[in-house]
Amino acid sequence: MRGGNVCGWALGGRPCGSMAALRRALVASFSTTGPEDVIGLSRWAAGLAKTAEVLAVAGKTEGNGCVNDFSRGFATAAVRSALGDQTISIMSGGTEGVLSPHVLAFATEAVSSGEAGSRAPGGETARLTLGTARTRTLAPWEIGTAAQAHAVRDAVLEGCEAVGMNPAALAFVQVKCPLLTSERIAASRAASKTLVTEDCYHSMAVSRGASSLGIALATDEITEVHDHDVCSDYDKMSVIASASAGVELMHCELLLVGNVAGAPSALKAGHCYMKDAVDARAIIQMLTKNGLEVEDGQLTDSGRERLVCMLAKSDPAPEVRGRRTTMMTDSDFNCTRHSRAAVGGLLAGITGDPRVFVSGGAEHQGPPGGGPVCIIYEAE
Amino acid sequence: MRGGNVCGWALGGRPCGSMAALRRALVASFSTTGPEDVIGLSRWAAGLAKTAEVLAVAGKTEGNGCVNDFSRGFATAAVRSALGDQTISIMSGGTEGVLSPHVLAFATEAVSSGEAGSRAPGGETARLTLGTARTRTLAPWEIGTAAQAHAVRDAVLEGCEAVGMNPAALAFVQVKCPLLTSERIAASRAASKTLVTEDCYHSMAVSRGASSLGIALATDEITEVHDHDVCSDYDKMSVIASASAGVELMHCELLLVGNVAGAPSALKAGHCYMKDAVDARAIIQMLTKNGLEVEDGQLTDSGRERLVCMLAKSDPAPEVRGRRTTMMTDSDFNCTRHSRAAVGGLLAGITGDPRVFVSGGAEHQGPPGGGPVCIIYEAE
Amino acid sequence: MRGGNVCGWALGGRPCGSMAALRRALVASFSTTGPEDVIGLSRWAAGLAKTAEVLAVAGKTEGNGCVNDFSRGFATAAVRSALGDQTISIMSGGTEGVLSPHVLAFATEAVSSGEAGSRAPGGETARLTLGTARTRTLAPWEIGTAAQAHAVRDAVLEGCEAVGMNPAALAFVQVKCPLLTSERIAASRAASKTLVTEDCYHSMAVSRGASSLGIALATDEITEVHDHDVCSDYDKMSVIASASAGVELMHCELLLVGNVAGAPSALKAGHCYMKDAVDARAIIQMLTKNGLEVEDGQLTDSGRERLVCMLAKSDPAPEVRGRRTTMMTDSDFNCTRHSRAAVGGLLAGITGDPRVFVSGGAEHQGPPGGGPVCIIYEAE
Amino acid sequence: MRGGNVCGWALGGRPCGSMAALRRALVASFSTTGPEDVIGLSRWAAGLAKTAEVLAVAGKTEGNGCVNDFSRGFATAAVRSALGDQTISIMSGGTEGVLSPHVLAFATEAVSSGEAGSRAPGGETARLTLGTARTRTLAPWEIGTAAQAHAVRDAVLEGCEAVGMNPAALAFVQVKCPLLTSERIAASRAASKTLVTEDCYHSMAVSRGASSLGIALATDEITEVHDHDVCSDYDKMSVIASASAGVELMHCELLLVGNVAGAPSALKAGHCYMKDAVDARAIIQMLTKNGLEVEDGQLTDSGRERLVCMLAKSDPAPEVRGRRTTMMTDSDFNCTRHSRAAVGGLLAGITGDPRVFVSGGAEHQGPPGGGPVCIIYEAE
Repeated sequence: MRGGNVCGWALGGRPCGSMAALRRALVASFSTTGPEDVIGLSRWAAGLAKTAEVLAVAGKTEGNGCVNDFSRGFATAAVRSALGDQTISIMSGGTEGVLSPHVLAFATEAVSSGEAGSRAPGGETARLTLGTARTRTLAPWEIGTAAQAHAVRDAVLEGCEAVGMNPAALAFVQVKCPLLTSERIAASRAASKTLVTEDCYHSMAVSRGASSLGIALATDEITEVHDHDVCSDYDKMSVIASASAGVELMHCELLLVGNVAGAPSALKAGHCYMKDAVDARAIIQMLTKNGLEVEDGQLTDSGRERLVCMLAKSDPAPEVRGRRTTMMTDSDFNCTRHSRAAVGGLLAGITGDPRVFVSGGAEHQGPPGGGPVCIIYEAE
Repeated sequence: MRGGNVCGWALGGRPCGSMAALRRALVASFSTTGPEDVIGLSRWAAGLAKTAEVLAVAGKTEGNGCVNDFSRGFATAAVRSALGDQTISIMSGGTEGVLSPHVLAFATEAVSSGEAGSRAPGGETARLTLGTARTRTLAPWEIGTAAQAHAVRDAVLEGCEAVGMNPAALAFVQVKCPLLTSERIAASRAASKTLVTEDCYHSMAVSRGASSLGIALATDEITEVHDHDVCSDYDKMSVIASASAGVELMHCELLLVGNVAGAPSALKAGHCYMKDAVDARAIIQMLTKNGLEVEDGQLTDSGRERLVCMLAKSDPAPEVRGRRTTMMTDSDFNCTRHSRAAVGGLLAGITGDPRVFVSGGAEHQGPPGGGPVCIIYEAE
Repeated sequence: MRGGNVCGWALGGRPCGSMAALRRALVASFSTTGPEDVIGLSRWAAGLAKTAEVLAVAGKTEGNGCVNDFSRGFATAAVRSALGDQTISIMSGGTEGVLSPHVLAFATEAVSSGEAGSRAPGGETARLTLGTARTRTLAPWEIGTAAQAHAVRDAVLEGCEAVGMNPAALAFVQVKCPLLTSERIAASRAASKTLVTEDCYHSMAVSRGASSLGIALATDEITEVHDHDVCSDYDKMSVIASASAGVELMHCELLLVGNVAGAPSALKAGHCYMKDAVDARAIIQMLTKNGLEVEDGQLTDSGRERLVCMLAKSDPAPEVRGRRTTMMTDSDFNCTRHSRAAVGGLLAGITGDPRVFVSGGAEHQGPPGGGPVCIIYEAE
Repeated sequence: MRGGNVCGWALGGRPCGSMAALRRALVASFSTTGPEDVIGLSRWAAGLAKTAEVLAVAGKTEGNGCVNDFSRGFATAAVRSALGDQTISIMSGGTEGVLSPHVLAFATEAVSSGEAGSRAPGGETARLTLGTARTRTLAPWEIGTAAQAHAVRDAVLEGCEAVGMNPAALAFVQVKCPLLTSERIAASRAASKTLVTEDCYHSMAVSRGASSLGIALATDEITEVHDHDVCSDYDKMSVIASASAGVELMHCELLLVGNVAGAPSALKAGHCYMKDAVDARAIIQMLTKNGLEVEDGQLTDSGRERLVCMLAKSDPAPEVRGRRTTMMTDSDFNCTRHSRAAVGGLLAGITGDPRVFVSGGAEHQGPPGGGPVCIIYEAE
């Protein structure tokens, strides 16, 4: 699915990696005692080098992960209060089952020229590289269209170029995208513009979907996107995309996670996708391929010590391997909660650690019922 | 944990297995379309030999598995209507996450004398043997006491003897036990008797706990039970017990699942226990030990074809491997639902099949936070 | 809203009431201990005269009232087992807040000729009259269309005529209507027919809506229905309609509740509609108008003793009297549950009795956010 | 129930009212768009006179009102950020049914000497007076004991004296009290002290209960409290107490609401208590007695315009007026949610305004199943 011709991905023609090695990627994980707990995060940020910058914070908070989940806003407010407004904040509600609330911090720091020269510790080996990107401001009527996908594609390509990363080397792209509100819908009507949907909740889905298709374009997973593909042609997808919609922005913000040869980080990223909610094999093969030792279906202690984080998407399905599930017909708790709980149980069983980041709802993000999985770990 | 002196388990001194080989154990699994769906079950029962008897039906129904779960009563009514009142009916609500609603039927049939003589297909190899047992009627004030445990121990021993099974060879014991109601509490007061609890909901826990301790006595997992042990000393437990409380009885009914050398069934039982909710290793080692092939953390197609069913208990915990979970503080959906969803996700990932039987709440049934797991499979 | 020309409602030209007075309407209410409790109902039915017939049973059962509410099916099975399949069974899940589970039985019995002659006890006063009706079998592609509305209109008119009731005298019409299933959708596609919706859940709404519009036609509340009106033009409505969709039928079944001059029942029906969820005034004015005494906002003891039952519809709304509610954005429990709880609290406060029948979801059944209310009471 | 000897309530012997009239009580209500919405509140506070002080903010926030309700913490953080830490913040989660999220602000401002001299607008008529009070810091082992009740009693008496209010004239006392945490329990054990409970959740109930009994002592509703009364002898209660427990304090904070003759406010307070969840009469009689016009069970427009706020407690009950409810056995959503929804529906029906403040859980706060109700309104 991935692959194809990646020549010329560097839009400006600048040789790959020329600047990228100058910043070292850092990732850290902190268990939290509640949505507002930023103690570990703040302490870590305070201890970083002066040249360091926290690019993004991703948090699993303990609300219901649905419409009335106030744990996300509460957590975002706490992170902003601690780190300022520049840090991209990606809060994902829902720690069902064994999932454990935590925040992940993604930072880069300058590498001293001597260090950069020696290109240690990665040498020419591919190592973790982080980037960010943002699209132009979108018009409300562009949400959920090919125009949004194209804007995201361009942002991914530019963001990759800025850090010297080949888009084919991306392991995970987290995108935060806009949604429609009553005000935006009214403004569009006033401007005589046609919207993809006038249902605010549904606008979240099409915005996530179009963004994910944009990532698929950037990585050559697909070659073109039309308006009618969004939330319709699910054969089109990106197996490294993870999207969430938020009311506070009208552009898209992206966190890019990948590997670049010679990057100075001590970390590496790996990825795969689950073809359905019980695809244990995909995970275990991926861990093994990345050199993390698995024994009797679970990471060994040393493997677990090297694993910094695991991020995954889960997707509700009325049937898994031909067996009926009751996720979609449970009026007492939402199908995304069912789905996160089950996938979280599996991933925590495989890693031996409930601190995994599982986020629900995955339009065009991996196959229906399945979803992308990314790991970041200490390279040997 | 299992083991110790099993001499003398055969209460009456009758040589083991003398009569047991005369009945063949049969187990079948049927997906259901709703709690009242007994079509597959009825058809199967109708096709059995005249000498066959359906001992028990265990169903995973799709209610919330908590107090107001009407899917259990609805399913029980349907099973009774189809098979009569003699069959033990064990309905467990809650198919969270990927878990798929289904019923398991446990039957035995007479073996013709010729067949019995040749002792095929098991030869002298241990094969699946099923038994049932029941205690005397308990007084309300015995619920949750050592007296209940002793009654269950005696029933297990008698039930094992009746089918020629050494209690040490038990792989799973399902017990259905009584609970307190307002009427029973009033009657006890009138009789000036002291109850373990006057909280009906809590009486379910202590009844399950005392029953499980009784099973632990029968299997020599523990040597004695005192009143104060129940729901208190969780070091005392049975790793093969599975208990549920029901309002409709004042005695305990038991389904005994184990292996007996030379038994005529084509099936075998295996078991292990999870030490916590993410103990993938225990499951995979057990599958492998029983000759079911696992590849990259999941049963192979042929392994899965041989697996008839998997039954497990899950137990909510505020912390798993040192990580905080939010199961116990989620006022929107019950901790047992969280727990079943997570363990179900893991087990379905390992088997590659969401049709696993995971039941929540496990006082003295395996270690706190963990739980027993039993498989029944086609012997090679 | 009601009214208009009701001349000619008697389709066949038969003089009104010629046969109607021959059967006496009986209504009884029974508290239940669970969905399967038909003890009170069965006892009452057994005590009826030989000439009596139980036309319908309406039950408030204690499930969630949403998709996975098994309390309805369980209750229906119990009623059928007790009374046979001929009785119309209308089970409504959801007893939120103070609402108390109960069943209502609607029966008629023959009146002896002497009694009929004297036309006691009603004399020429209007008294309770019950009828039933059913439409022809509908095609799947008629569900949610004007064709369904027209079929319901005809059935109401015929049902009224059969019992000598002027449709303008209807106080409540309960309709049970079909919904689409995957099989019915597939059959329609095979027949190259276009469906109103291919979403099974949504088909329930349009079926309820079209049925309610049919009732509005019969009562002259509206004069015409077009396909595009259904679940769209909410100015069109019936303030006496109550509709529920069920999978078990492909026609519509109706229970007709109204008053006929000289009918032999000791009971009468009254009705009104709430214009929103806090319309206490409409209820109190209606009670007073029907001669049931209200004091300080609540029925007096004697008023309450005369009240046999109260049936109402509640309708979720994002705003009530200009105040934002959170019903529609609560992902933890369904908006219909919120709505029933609130309206139930109000009605029980006014009657002083939590045994009121509040059913949620009310497309074209009274104004959006409000709903019809019917009472049946002992005439003075 | 209220009454008895109130002589000597002024602990220090200072003549009542000597200082109280110097500050005018102000109360305002603001609808909110989410837990973090303090726009209306902040604007209002900014517009107050320099001498004004916002004593307390009470908010109905839209979480589940149970353990994992993050809307309360989020709202509290927003209020603190807007008004500082001195304002007592009382956040009550749960806006079920028609209840509408809002915040109430309670302030006092100095009255100019001329104005004070004329004692306008109240003249010698009793008018709204607000006070605050706080107890000493409690030891963890005092929580839920008579010692806590006595501390609260003293604080109420002192707070009343400070504003010249006779405790018999109190209409509502809101108390925020401490609870036990794992750390506090550990500290108590280390100090060899016996706690009332070692269950953190239950400590909330006994803390609320003991605080409410302290209020009952201050108002002479009861004459003595013993340790064993707390959460046990529910005949002892205060019909004007409203208590909530919070983790952030180890003392009790109180907001006192009452009337004082000649106080300079334009507002008055009224109160009553519901004897159960359907006690419409108590409310309507109270409204009428306070001069707010009710017509057909609902406030008239002019009555509603004069009503500033209504605060009430609701209490779950398994039976209301002899009818079974399903609140206590609903494992899908908490009994306090059921209870708030029902009582909220009734109160909003009576006021004609969903912006009523209903808080759930009411140990010793009014009779079991019922609860206190307070109104603040513009005096004529």
